[in-house]
Amino acid sequence: MNYSIGVDVGGTNTDLGLVSGSGSIVQRRNLSTGAYTDFALYIRDFMREVDYMLADQETFDGQPVTLEGIGVGAPNGNFYTGCVDDAPNLTMKGVLDFGKEIQQYRDVPVVLSNDANAAAYGEYVYGGAKGMKHFIMFTLGTGVGSGIVVDGKLVHGSTGAAGELGHAILYQHGRQCSCGRQGCLETYTSARGIVQTYCELKGIPVTSEVTSKMIGELAHQGDAVALKTWETVGDQLGLAMANAVTFSAPEAIFLMGGPTLVGEPLLKPLREAFDRYLLNIFAGSCSIRLSELKANEVAILGAAALLKMKN
Amino acid sequence: MNYSIGVDVGGTNTDLGLVSGSGSIVQRRNLSTGAYTDFALYIRDFMREVDYMLADQETFDGQPVTLEGIGVGAPNGNFYTGCVDDAPNLTMKGVLDFGKEIQQYRDVPVVLSNDANAAAYGEYVYGGAKGMKHFIMFTLGTGVGSGIVVDGKLVHGSTGAAGELGHAILYQHGRQCSCGRQGCLETYTSARGIVQTYCELKGIPVTSEVTSKMIGELAHQGDAVALKTWETVGDQLGLAMANAVTFSAPEAIFLMGGPTLVGEPLLKPLREAFDRYLLNIFAGSCSIRLSELKANEVAILGAAALLKMKN
Repeated sequence: MNYSIGVDVGGTNTDLGLVSGSGSIVQRRNLSTGAYTDFALYIRDFMREVDYMLADQETFDGQPVTLEGIGVGAPNGNFYTGCVDDAPNLTMKGVLDFGKEIQQYRDVPVVLSNDANAAAYGEYVYGGAKGMKHFIMFTLGTGVGSGIVVDGKLVHGSTGAAGELGHAILYQHGRQCSCGRQGCLETYTSARGIVQTYCELKGIPVTSEVTSKMIGELAHQGDAVALKTWETVGDQLGLAMANAVTFSAPEAIFLMGGPTLVGEPLLKPLREAFDRYLLNIFAGSCSIRLSELKANEVAILGAAALLKMKN
Repeated sequence: MNYSIGVDVGGTNTDLGLVSGSGSIVQRRNLSTGAYTDFALYIRDFMREVDYMLADQETFDGQPVTLEGIGVGAPNGNFYTGCVDDAPNLTMKGVLDFGKEIQQYRDVPVVLSNDANAAAYGEYVYGGAKGMKHFIMFTLGTGVGSGIVVDGKLVHGSTGAAGELGHAILYQHGRQCSCGRQGCLETYTSARGIVQTYCELKGIPVTSEVTSKMIGELAHQGDAVALKTWETVGDQLGLAMANAVTFSAPEAIFLMGGPTLVGEPLLKPLREAFDRYLLNIFAGSCSIRLSELKANEVAILGAAALLKMKN
């Protein structure tokens, strides 16, 4: 039987999954990314988990298992080089060459991209974007990421780092962003940005006790400030999405991540704003949709899906 | 000998050129677009000009001429359908099916796209973007157009109308745009937008006596308001370009059209603003360059270049 490995490298945890040819995650393992400063040691332990899953699967299947490759989604992951370059939220510093290091253990294809690109490609191969040639995925979480598919291919650009719509500047002299610039979309529609908007509307200092999940619950209870917060976020995201349409005229824009779980309090104003800001020639040509992959599977499936790109 | 025809359909004039295999315009003819309301009649006369150029060339070459195809750049031109859909600045209304109508006269490939896409592709085939896989062309004129190349292909998107960065919203509640929305890039960096900025800075009503060319001349004479105008336009365009980089990470952004002829008073603040607004991971990866094609040739060469896409 043929399997691939999908890996989601996060700052805290590395989640590994064994993925069947039909796109089911049949086994999962994880590793504490934050415990490592030595990349070689990290990959040694990482490959132990891979070996473990493969051996276990051979026992289960009762026949030899073929590993088709390892797909990795990682912050700052560069598709062209197979490396992670100085990801600010990783304890391992410098240039991490996943491809080279992994292939010292197993001679299989290794494909790496950033986590949002992986999510977009997962949606394409296994989710709601199947058969679409042009779409965009926005991921809302600690930051805001995006993955863009044009003509059925992920856009990597000349550097490998294309698709950073979370750092398109929404407001020229807007909020301070961790990237050093001002007004990036991420400062408004990330979990932290949403909390900031709520606290500003409420007239209270920004505190770590307020979470976007809590603001979602408050909205469902009819809290006016919470509802206004999601309306504001929907307006901002709708504007950013309408601008993205002028670039690639996608047939759909997908949305995933924690803050999207709030549902209608965000989606209704988002769709209204999108329609309002959309250039008339694109009216009706692009829908806004939630990811159809399960929240706890998308990262692994997306990473595994990256391997399909080589075909 | 093999030739192709490149056609630039403007609201006032239609410029036709006979283009050699090496990309030289060897003959030119034109037609008064504005004189027609009947599309069939227009194409009949259009094809007479084509026939004229081909016959003339056969006499000149002393051997049969082969027509490889006709490429058309036109406002609202849709690559997928080969039609112009309700272009507001044409006297011929409705859906103009160039491909079908032309092929009633000659059975040759007809490729059509909007004028900015044609310009981008002309730069790719005959100009400064040769060999680049990822770049963007901004055209400044009456409006602001753009053509985007990703992985060596023009981005047409799901509708055929992708690449409308002149209608990306720069300022959420900004200037009224002719498209019905507010704050489009075009309202600031088109010839008209530049004139408006100058008049606002000068504290005078917007008048048709002021032109962007005049503001260019004033800037070269050291006029403070004119210099401030170009600085403002450079800042706005630099922001829009930095945002475009987050999408496709191009290796260059090209710029063409009347207002760009001013040169350094625009280019210097533009490049400074671009560097300031560019996300750090893209630093140094993308240059801003002027089109290398002659202003009076780019439209015809670009239209002819569209035929190369089929190869």
